[in-house]
Amino acid sequence: MDDIEALKRLKARYCRTLDTKDWDGMRPIFADDAVVDTTGSGGGVITGADAFMTFLREHLADHVTVHHCHMPEITLTSPSTATGIWAMEDRIRWAGGGELIGFGHYHETYEKTGGTWRIKTTTLTRLRLDMTEPAP
Amino acid sequence: MDDIEALKRLKARYCRTLDTKDWDGMRPIFADDAVVDTTGSGGGVITGADAFMTFLREHLADHVTVHHCHMPEITLTSPSTATGIWAMEDRIRWAGGGELIGFGHYHETYEKTGGTWRIKTTTLTRLRLDMTEPAP
Amino acid sequence: MDDIEALKRLKARYCRTLDTKDWDGMRPIFADDAVVDTTGSGGGVITGADAFMTFLREHLADHVTVHHCHMPEITLTSPSTATGIWAMEDRIRWAGGGELIGFGHYHETYEKTGGTWRIKTTTLTRLRLDMTEPAP
Repeated sequence: MDDIEALKRLKARYCRTLDTKDWDGMRPIFADDAVVDTTGSGGGVITGADAFMTFLREHLADHVTVHHCHMPEITLTSPSTATGIWAMEDRIRWAGGGELIGFGHYHETYEKTGGTWRIKTTTLTRLRLDMTEPAP
Repeated sequence: MDDIEALKRLKARYCRTLDTKDWDGMRPIFADDAVVDTTGSGGGVITGADAFMTFLREHLADHVTVHHCHMPEITLTSPSTATGIWAMEDRIRWAGGGELIGFGHYHETYEKTGGTWRIKTTTLTRLRLDMTEPAP
Repeated sequence: MDDIEALKRLKARYCRTLDTKDWDGMRPIFADDAVVDTTGSGGGVITGADAFMTFLREHLADHVTVHHCHMPEITLTSPSTATGIWAMEDRIRWAGGGELIGFGHYHETYEKTGGTWRIKTTTLTRLRLDMTEPAP
C-alpha cells in the first residue's frame, strides 16, 4: 500500500474507532505528542494523545456519534511527513436528547515513525455547526 | 488500475446502480453465491445474488434512495480475495411519505474471478437508524 | 501522484474552494472553455470558466454551502483525457433563512494540459432536491 492510501486508512480508522468507541484501537493512530485543536468547535487545544483520549472518553463515550470524512487532499512533504485536508460531517446525539450536526474541514499533519503513519496535529475548522436542544 | 482502486469502484458502482435503480448494472457486482446480512437493519440474511436482486426490486424500486459510502479500509488477503470496511449513510424516502435515515458500516469480503472483483459477503452494522412516519 | 489520485484531488479542491469561497483558488480547476450543466437542479448550461465563476460569485458567495462528493468512478480515456462520476450531497443555507439539501451525481470529463488536470465538462443529475422556506 502506498503512503497516500495508508494515510487515508489512518483517518478512516480514526472515524471508525471514534464512532464504535474502540478507544484502545484509536490510541495508536496518534503520535504521543499530538496536538488537537478544537477551537473551531468552541473547545480548546489538547496536547498529547493520552490527554485527547481522556477527553474523548469523558465527552463522547456515552453518546451516539457519526463522523464522516471526505475528499482527502494529502501531500507527502518528506518520506516521513505529510499534510492532509479532509472535508467532514459529524453528528452527535447526546444521551440527554439534543443533537449536534456539523460540517467543516480537518487540517492535519502526519508523521511516519517505525514504518507507521500517525496523526501529529489536527485542527477542525467549521462551515456550520447546528445544535438542537437540550444541550449536553 | 490497482486492486484497491478497483474495489473502491466496485462499491461505488453498487451505490450508484442502487440509487439509480439500474438493476441490470448491479447484478454483476455480486458473486453468484453472495451473502447479504441485513440483520443490523432489522432484516434477514439473503443468500445468492439473484435472491438479493429480487429483494431490492421488491423493497426499494419504488422509493427514492441515497446510499453514500465513505473512508474505505480495504485489505488484500490474497491475489484473489480481499476484505473491506466502509462507513455509510443511507436515506430512503418511501413512496408513502415516511423516511429512513441511517448510519453504519459495511463489513465485506470480495473475490476476484476471471479478472473481475465481486462482492462475496456484506454485513451492515448500524450506529443509528431513524424513521419518520408513515412507515412503508 | 498518479492520474486517478490527481483527479480525485481536483474535485476535492473544487468542493473546498466553493465552500470556503476561495474563488481565486477555484478558477484554475476549470478549463477555460468548461461547460457546466445545472439543468438537473433547475438552472441552465453555463459555458466558460469565467462565466461560471461569475455565476458562483453572484449566487453562492453570500450563503453557507457544503458540498461533499463521494465514491469516484474515474476512467482514464487517453493520457490527457478522463471521465468521472461522483455521488454528491450539497447543502445551501441561504442568507435569508431557507435551506436546500440535495443529492445526486456529477458526471464529468477532464483534460490534462501542461501537466495539469482540469474539469472540462460537468453535469449534475439529481436523486433528490429538498427546499425549505423562505426561498432565496
